[in-house]
Amino acid sequence: MPRYKLVIEYDGGPFCGWQRQAEDPTVQGAVEAAVTRFSGEDARLTCAGRTDAGVHAIHQVAHLDLAKAWRTDTVRDALNAHLRPQPVAILSAEIVPESFDARHSAIRRHYRYRILNRRSPAALTRAHVWQVPWPLDADLMHEAAQRLVGRHDFSAFRAAECQANSPIRTLEQLDVARAPMALHDEIVVATSARSFLHHQVRAMVGTLMLAGCRRLSADDVAEILASGDKRRCGPLAPAAGLTFVGVDYDPGK
Amino acid sequence: MPRYKLVIEYDGGPFCGWQRQAEDPTVQGAVEAAVTRFSGEDARLTCAGRTDAGVHAIHQVAHLDLAKAWRTDTVRDALNAHLRPQPVAILSAEIVPESFDARHSAIRRHYRYRILNRRSPAALTRAHVWQVPWPLDADLMHEAAQRLVGRHDFSAFRAAECQANSPIRTLEQLDVARAPMALHDEIVVATSARSFLHHQVRAMVGTLMLAGCRRLSADDVAEILASGDKRRCGPLAPAAGLTFVGVDYDPGK
Repeated sequence: MPRYKLVIEYDGGPFCGWQRQAEDPTVQGAVEAAVTRFSGEDARLTCAGRTDAGVHAIHQVAHLDLAKAWRTDTVRDALNAHLRPQPVAILSAEIVPESFDARHSAIRRHYRYRILNRRSPAALTRAHVWQVPWPLDADLMHEAAQRLVGRHDFSAFRAAECQANSPIRTLEQLDVARAPMALHDEIVVATSARSFLHHQVRAMVGTLMLAGCRRLSADDVAEILASGDKRRCGPLAPAAGLTFVGVDYDPGK
Repeated sequence: MPRYKLVIEYDGGPFCGWQRQAEDPTVQGAVEAAVTRFSGEDARLTCAGRTDAGVHAIHQVAHLDLAKAWRTDTVRDALNAHLRPQPVAILSAEIVPESFDARHSAIRRHYRYRILNRRSPAALTRAHVWQVPWPLDADLMHEAAQRLVGRHDFSAFRAAECQANSPIRTLEQLDVARAPMALHDEIVVATSARSFLHHQVRAMVGTLMLAGCRRLSADDVAEILASGDKRRCGPLAPAAGLTFVGVDYDPGK
């Protein structure tokens, strides 16, 4: 029973997140329905990073098992044909060893968050940014962000409904910078970790926004982290600004 | 009667182009309706580059005259409020001398065309790219593009309905390159000229696409230009990939 690894791009806008639900449209549901229409099999997908409603992905990875060993180009093209016109694209399909697990074999996840920092609303990028109308200092945001990097208890940046066993995470990267050639006055937050708590990236971005407009200092952000008190963190940044951009697997596996 | 210069961003998708029409939604119609709701005046806008249906703009420039000298921030914010929820944003408003004409004072227009060069459809950028599934060589496209730069009769790249008096244009720039950090396998065409013929950019891009997949050589492209025969040029590249990115004005004016 061959195992397939899929790389998937999607616009999270029309979906109630990745995870299959009985009633509402989800990315997992859309891809699984395409698999059934293509192969006649009821396959279940497992992905590297289950994204929330409205969150996008340019490089989500998922695996599934099918009874038949199809040509991988056929799998990719057939799934894309059956997914149309939904904004979900299979970028590649390959056969991997059964030991590969899109979720458990992952050693690092990468997310990007886009802030449109200008007074005028977004016309072209509306569904992909958080528009913040007051001026933000990206350098101050980056400075505060460095206080979150490392191994910490991230309870202050965790959703009440988070199902992780432990609030301890090791944040490997949290960089904040003005976009180069910033025609759109964009600030980009790039972050990486083995795994994140539910809502962690969006809660961190909302808190860094307050550092960017000087309502919080870098010391305040460090104190909020140490307090473990989620009532003290900033607003939850909107889902639309967040994109799952990639996942690393142990090259030895 | 003060004259206002507006910088405008819009998603061309839902509009039948810039130019006001009796029945169909247009960008000019949307902004003029917002001006009327805000000021009570019937103002007419003149823009730097009248875009076709589906073409986007990140920096369109237009001027209009109003009886009253409003604060320019008020003009910008009030128009944005009245434009909501349409994907049109006024990025700035300023008062300019009556000698300024958004169309006739322009000395250079800039357009960008985005090609998504991969087999899988676009999920995230669907409304902003032309997806070309077969491999394209961006270097070959750039080489062929250089044969179009300069002062020429562009009849071969002109729409039948083009209203320009002359088919002679001076193409100042036509650069083709793979996007840096091309997570999306994107090829970007950047072009500049004092003015363009109707459909000129999209006809040039369609022709360069044929050079990118070796169906035309750079010499062929030069011959098509010299022939003045629009039946010999490539397909008209779709509107969605095209964005008006800016306009230069004589700094002395």
